[in-house]
This record gives sequence, C-alpha cells and structure tokens, in this order.
Amino acid sequence: MAVETLSEHRCFGGVQGFYRHESTAIGLPMRFGVFLPPQAAKGPVPVLFYLAGLTCTEETFAIKAGAQRLAAKLGLAIVTPDTSPRATGIEGADAAWDFGHGAGFYLDASEAPWSRHFRMECWIVEELRALVFERFALRRDRVGVFGHSMGGHGALTLALRHPSLFQSVSAFAPIAAPTQCPWGEKAFTGYLGEDRARWAEHDATELIQAGKRCPPLLIDQGRADQFLAAQLHPDKLEAACRAAGQPLTLRWHEGYDHGYYFVQSVVADHLRHHARTLEKLG
Amino acid sequence: MAVETLSEHRCFGGVQGFYRHESTAIGLPMRFGVFLPPQAAKGPVPVLFYLAGLTCTEETFAIKAGAQRLAAKLGLAIVTPDTSPRATGIEGADAAWDFGHGAGFYLDASEAPWSRHFRMECWIVEELRALVFERFALRRDRVGVFGHSMGGHGALTLALRHPSLFQSVSAFAPIAAPTQCPWGEKAFTGYLGEDRARWAEHDATELIQAGKRCPPLLIDQGRADQFLAAQLHPDKLEAACRAAGQPLTLRWHEGYDHGYYFVQSVVADHLRHHARTLEKLG
Repeated sequence: MAVETLSEHRCFGGVQGFYRHESTAIGLPMRFGVFLPPQAAKGPVPVLFYLAGLTCTEETFAIKAGAQRLAAKLGLAIVTPDTSPRATGIEGADAAWDFGHGAGFYLDASEAPWSRHFRMECWIVEELRALVFERFALRRDRVGVFGHSMGGHGALTLALRHPSLFQSVSAFAPIAAPTQCPWGEKAFTGYLGEDRARWAEHDATELIQAGKRCPPLLIDQGRADQFLAAQLHPDKLEAACRAAGQPLTLRWHEGYDHGYYFVQSVVADHLRHHARTLEKLG
Repeated sequence: MAVETLSEHRCFGGVQGFYRHESTAIGLPMRFGVFLPPQAAKGPVPVLFYLAGLTCTEETFAIKAGAQRLAAKLGLAIVTPDTSPRATGIEGADAAWDFGHGAGFYLDASEAPWSRHFRMECWIVEELRALVFERFALRRDRVGVFGHSMGGHGALTLALRHPSLFQSVSAFAPIAAPTQCPWGEKAFTGYLGEDRARWAEHDATELIQAGKRCPPLLIDQGRADQFLAAQLHPDKLEAACRAAGQPLTLRWHEGYDHGYYFVQSVVADHLRHHARTLEKLG
C-alpha cells in the first residue's frame, strides 16, 4: 500500500501531513491528512478519525479547527479523510454541492453509477484504517471518531455500525436523522435507491432505535446554526438516545452558527472527551 | 463612514466579523475582519492590527491562525485588513501572485498606474484605523501591529514609520530587508519607481539603520522556511537592530516552514507579547 506524501508541515512540535494513495476500495486515488503529535516519535499514540462536512476536503479541519495545539499536548493523532472520491468522471457528480463530489456521506453506494467509486465506508473503516496503522505510530486499540455536519453523521453511523472499531465518539452539529431531512433524502435516494429500509442502516437516530449502541456521545450544536431547523434534527437523536438508554451529552450554544468558528470554539472539549474516554480503557 | 457587515460569527464567546466599506484612501470598496473578544461588551479593549502575506485576504488569519481562543482569553481585538485593493481594473494587476492584487506591500504607490488605488499605508494607518475606532469598542491608546511575511514587513515598517500609533510590534517570518530581495525589488520598482532612496523608507532594516525605532520586537522564523534564503533576511534586520540598540527577540524554529501551520504554532506567544507590552503602559 504505497502512500505518496503531498506535504508535511511541522506544527506544535508534531507534523501535519497530507498524503495520497491508490485506493482499491474506491478505485481512484484518495487523499487524507494525518496530524502526528510529538509523542508519536516515542511510540504508538491514540488516534481520532475526523470526518468533514459537505464541500470539505482532507485539509479543512487541519486548516480551520485549530485542533493541533491541544492534540499535541494530549498526544492524540488525527486522521482527516477527504469527503468523497474525486474526478470520478460520473455525470452529475459536480452538479450540486450536497451530492456527488465532496458529499460522500460515509457510506458505500449501491446504485449505479455511484456504486463504482462512492464507497467511503469501506475505504475508511477498512482500507484507510489499515493503511494509517501500517504507516504511522498509532494504537489500533485506541481509536476515536468525530465529525462535523455530514461528517458528524458519518462519525455517529460508523461508530454505531462498527462498535468494535471505535472506542470514543463525538460530533459537531451532525446530520442526526438524515432519513428525515432534504440533504439525507437526496443522498440516500441517489446512493442507496428508493428502499427506505436501507436508508435506516445509515441514520444514527434509526440505528439507535434499532438497538445499536456506541460509547457515550458528546454533541455540540449552535442555536444560530442556519441548517438546524431543516437539516440536523439533534432533538430526534436525543429522544432516541433517551428512550434507548444510549448515553448522550447534547450541549446547546447560544448564538453559534454552523461553521468552523463554532467548531474551533468547542474543539478542545471534544479532544478532551476522546482523550478521557480512551484513557479509561487503560 | 458606512460599514457593511458581510458576516458575523460567534467565536470563543466573542464575534469574528467581516466587513466592507467604500474607502476614500483607496477609491474602491475594501474588506477587513474584526475579532471582538467577549470583554469588548463591557468597554473598549486593546486592539492588534494583523497584516497578512502575499495572496492572502482579510479572512486568512481568522481562518488559519487559531488566534481567537487566546485573544478571547486575553481580551484582545484583532483587525485583519485585506492585503491590497481588489478589482482595480489596472492592467497586469492579476498577472503575478507577488505583485498587484493580493500584494499591496503596505505602502502608498507613487507610480502610475498603481498610485491610483494602491494606497495601503494611508488606508490602514488613517482611514481604517479611524473607522474601526468609531465602530468598535477599541482602545485608541493600546494598539499593536503584527504580521506574516509581506505582512511582517508591513508590521515592522508601519511601526517604525508611525511610532506614535503602535505600542507593540511583532512578526512571523517577515520580509525583513525588502530592498535586498526579489519580492521587494519587484514591488518597490513597480509601486515606487527606480529611486532606491524611496525604497529605503519602506525597508525595516534600512529604517532602523536610519535611526527609526519601535517598541521591542518579537520575531519568529522557521529554519525550514522555503523563502528564508532568498526573500526574508532576518539576519540583516538582526544586525541592524544590534548595531542600533533596537530591542529584538529573534527566535529560530527547527523544521518549521513558511505557512500557517508555523504561524498557529507560535501565535500564542505573539498575543502574550502584545498583551504584556500594552498592559505595561498602565
């Protein structure tokens, strides 16, 4: 599994790198970022997968979230996958900002023509995961996942669908019930087809209702988020968690919107949530 | 002086805003950002002008530097001007990334056609300064200036040229002797003409040699900076400061490059440098 280094930058005593590899899962080159804290020079460190939102790339979180400072202090690595295959050549893949390129929704598409390359779940939980463990000094048994918006959806659903792979989970303003919002309906119709029973397998709220569980959740949500009312529905996830006994801390933030000025304002609490949860495992 | 609000985002309890106004100095609309810390709700706070580098905009520092966290704690406002006039219609203004749009060099051009709009010094130290004091809760007597690369040049030269206006100064990887590097030679030739005596008035090293002084300087410089050897020359500035008795702390950082992964790694020390210097004034 050859990995091409695109760039590496010293950052807070660690290294923020960007890489590309020929993905078998996707059938195209895929990009990702890795922040390695200084502690990784001495041995494997816990690692968080951060999943970004619509229109974002492997660089977005690394540039905008200001997370490296505390990650360097806590000794956490952060892997930031791109949000979809690129340059797929699929007709319509560039037609909208909420579907196709930049909008992989962290699932494996079953419908043509998307099923050829849009296999983000398989890429992240199998191929990319194996690749970063092989290449970087990371602890395979201390892995968290978090994300923002579409990537919050990705973090929640991947944690619920693969409980053995992720020991800590959190999200910023996630799409918490995608089967009940326009973004999710559009993506699931396109990638998964008309059968709503298959949609439910990629909806955090429905997964919890169906009995799936994950480590205690931390979710932050701004009250001035421009997508809150139409797209996000954290209330539905909260109700499902309460009914199911799934631990959830949902924090509301007055005046904060959907963007990275919000994410950077609360990212430290997420890193500490993951560090504490992973440390408790011993 | 009407100011149009482009966007405002809650951030670390304060507000990161972006604004536009019709600039008399420039003769075109100009953009700038302001981070107001939570303390500004109770009364005027000290303010830092941050000057960005080549190709950057009023958003670059706000997005990439991760400075709002500590600025909110220290109670510092940060004003981030755009780096040049935009859409000037001047032929050649978009021809290069190191001259014209995005490359104003923080001076008032004397040469046609640039002299019509490229008046960044006048805009920042007179018009924008007056405008932000009028509009935001800022202390007129506690003003710092800092910047990166071309903006480090701007911070140093504006502080040296207007000692009564800025009470604290620092820079990240500044163009420290622009009359002796290709970026500076190109910009000064274009904006100021062939007479090198006029160039010297906008070169930090030469200004110090000519007897100008400013508050104690903090400069950080990465040793792996790709522009260090050809463009930056902090050694020349250091020699001038030593000969002149101008206080300077020049810190070298092994392995760090020219970008914002470097800037974010040291930005906290700059904010503390400014906060301490401004606090000492009483």
